[in-house]
Amino acid sequence: MHDLALAVDLGGTNLRCGIIDSSGNLIAESSQSSGSDEGPEAVVQRIARLIDLVATDQGIADDVPIGLVAPGPLDLRTGTVRYAPNLKGWSDVPLRAMLEDLSGREVMLGNDANAQALGEFYFGAASGVDNLIYVALGTGLGGGVIAEGKLIDGIDGLGGELGHTTVNMDGPRCTCGSQGCVESYCSGWAIARDGQALVNSNRSAAIARIAGDHPVEAPAVSEAASEGDPEAGKILRQAGRALGAGLANFVNIFNPEMIVIGGGLADVGSLLLDPARDAMRQYALPDLVGTLEFRRSALGGKTGIFGAAALVFHQGEK
Amino acid sequence: MHDLALAVDLGGTNLRCGIIDSSGNLIAESSQSSGSDEGPEAVVQRIARLIDLVATDQGIADDVPIGLVAPGPLDLRTGTVRYAPNLKGWSDVPLRAMLEDLSGREVMLGNDANAQALGEFYFGAASGVDNLIYVALGTGLGGGVIAEGKLIDGIDGLGGELGHTTVNMDGPRCTCGSQGCVESYCSGWAIARDGQALVNSNRSAAIARIAGDHPVEAPAVSEAASEGDPEAGKILRQAGRALGAGLANFVNIFNPEMIVIGGGLADVGSLLLDPARDAMRQYALPDLVGTLEFRRSALGGKTGIFGAAALVFHQGEK
Repeated sequence: MHDLALAVDLGGTNLRCGIIDSSGNLIAESSQSSGSDEGPEAVVQRIARLIDLVATDQGIADDVPIGLVAPGPLDLRTGTVRYAPNLKGWSDVPLRAMLEDLSGREVMLGNDANAQALGEFYFGAASGVDNLIYVALGTGLGGGVIAEGKLIDGIDGLGGELGHTTVNMDGPRCTCGSQGCVESYCSGWAIARDGQALVNSNRSAAIARIAGDHPVEAPAVSEAASEGDPEAGKILRQAGRALGAGLANFVNIFNPEMIVIGGGLADVGSLLLDPARDAMRQYALPDLVGTLEFRRSALGGKTGIFGAAALVFHQGEK
Repeated sequence: MHDLALAVDLGGTNLRCGIIDSSGNLIAESSQSSGSDEGPEAVVQRIARLIDLVATDQGIADDVPIGLVAPGPLDLRTGTVRYAPNLKGWSDVPLRAMLEDLSGREVMLGNDANAQALGEFYFGAASGVDNLIYVALGTGLGGGVIAEGKLIDGIDGLGGELGHTTVNMDGPRCTCGSQGCVESYCSGWAIARDGQALVNSNRSAAIARIAGDHPVEAPAVSEAASEGDPEAGKILRQAGRALGAGLANFVNIFNPEMIVIGGGLADVGSLLLDPARDAMRQYALPDLVGTLEFRRSALGGKTGIFGAAALVFHQGEK
C-alpha cells in the first residue's frame, strides 16, 4: 500500500490537486479553473502541469501515483470518460492513458460520487464503517455504496447509481431518459425546475423576489423555504421524501450501518434532510433501520480530493 | 469444497430433501408434508428423520453437510429464523443449531430466494454467469443477487430484497408496512387482491366465473387474462410494469448480465413477463440494458433443493 497520493479532482468549473498521506493529512493543495471549454487535450495538459508543480514543490517521488476523480459515466476497464455533460467536447476520452503518458505516473481513475464515498470511508464521517451509502447532492444526484469495505462499482463502473432509482413509475421526466428517478425530484436541476414553475404561475412571491431577473436556481428555493414560504417548503419536502424512498431501496439491498449525505445541496439542511430521513425510515424494511445512522459529510468541499486519494489507497488494499 | 450435499427445502406446505453432487446431479429425492402447524420442535425432528432416511438409504458419509433453505427473515449470523408467516409458531427459532444437534452434521442455512439464486447460478439458467438477479414470483416476491460470483446477503441476511423496492411512493399498502413496493403490485397476493376488487365491482365476469364461490386467487386472474378478459390483462400488465421498474432499480445498482425469473407465478408467462421486460428496459439506464439477458428459471419446482445444495458448495468457495 502506498503512503502518499497525488489527488486530483476534475470538475466542470474547478480543478483541484492535493498531496494526501494515508492517515488523511492534507500536505499541500492547489486549485485553478479547469478551463473545461478548451477541450480534453488542453485540460489534461493543465492537470499534468498542476501535478508537476505541486509534486516538485513538495519533493514528491516519481513512483507516487495519482488518484483522479472525474465526472462520468466512465469506463473503468479502459480508463475512458464516455461523456461528461459539464466538460465541453468530452466523448470517449482515454483520460487515464493520456495523463499517465504526460505525467509518467500511475493513474487510478474513479467516478466522482463513488470516489467521494471512499473518501468518507477512509477519512470522513464513515471512517471505519464497512457498510455505507454515500449521497452526493448537487446539480445532479450521485451516490456510492461501500459493502463489506469494498466499493461497488459494477462491471462498467456505473454501480451505485442512486440518482436513477425509480421511486415513482409515473413521475417526472429525468435527464437519463426515464421518469420518476430520485434525481427527477431531488437535485439542483429538479428543485430549480419546480421553483421556476411556482414563479411562472405566480405562486411564490418569495422565490420570485430572491431570483430577481435570473432563472430560478435551487438556492433561491432553499432561501425562500427558510424564510417560511410554504410552497418552497413543499418542494424541499417532496425532494426529501423522494430521496428517502430511494435511500430505502438501497437500504433494503445493502443493509448498511450508515448513510452519509454530501454535496453542495446538503447545505440546505434540515428542511430537505429531515423529510429524507423520515421517508427512509418509512419505506425501508423495519428490521434494517433500527440502528442505521444518518450523517452529514465530514469533508465538505474537500470530499473530491480526499476521494481521489482514497482511490489510491483502496487500490492498494484490493 | 464438498462433492456432495444433503439438500433440504423447508416450505410452509412441503418439505423436500435430496442428495445432489457438485455437478448438479440429483442422486436421490424424497418429500413429505412439512407439518408446519405442529410447531418448530416437531418440524425440525421431521427434517432430521427425513435426512437420516435418505442418507442411510444411499450410504452417505457423516461428514456430508446439510444445505437448508428456509423462509425468512433469517439471522444468518446466529442461524435463527426470526419469524416466518407460513410456519406456525416460529419466532426466533435457532434452526441451524437445532438441526446440527439432531443430525450431527454441519448445516448451512439460507433464505429461500437467495438460495434459489445460487441454485440457478450453479446448476440452472445462469450457470457460469457471475452477475445476475434472480426473481422468485410466488405468493410474495423474493429476490437474490449474485455479484462477481458472490451472493449479496447483507449483514442480517436480508440483502437482495427486490420485493420491497419502492416503485411508487404513493402506491398500495404492502405487507411490510410500507407502500408502493414491487410486491404490492406483482405477487400472488397483490394480483389476487386486484382480481377480487374487479369481481366485487362486477367488472370481470371471466374472473368471477373462474373463481366461482372461492376468493379470487392469482391463477384465476391469469386464466381470465389468457381468455382475453381486458381488465384481467390490465392487472397483469400493471404487475409486470412494477416488476420491471423494480428490476431496473437493481440493474442500475448491480449492472448484471442476466435476469432469471422463477417461482410458480412465472408460469403466467408472457402476459406478465413481456411488460416486465419492456418496463425494465424503459426504466433502467440505457447503457446497462444493451446486452442484458432475461430468462425463465431452468430448475422449475426443484429450485429449492438445488438452491440448498448450492449453499453447501458456495460456502466451500468463499
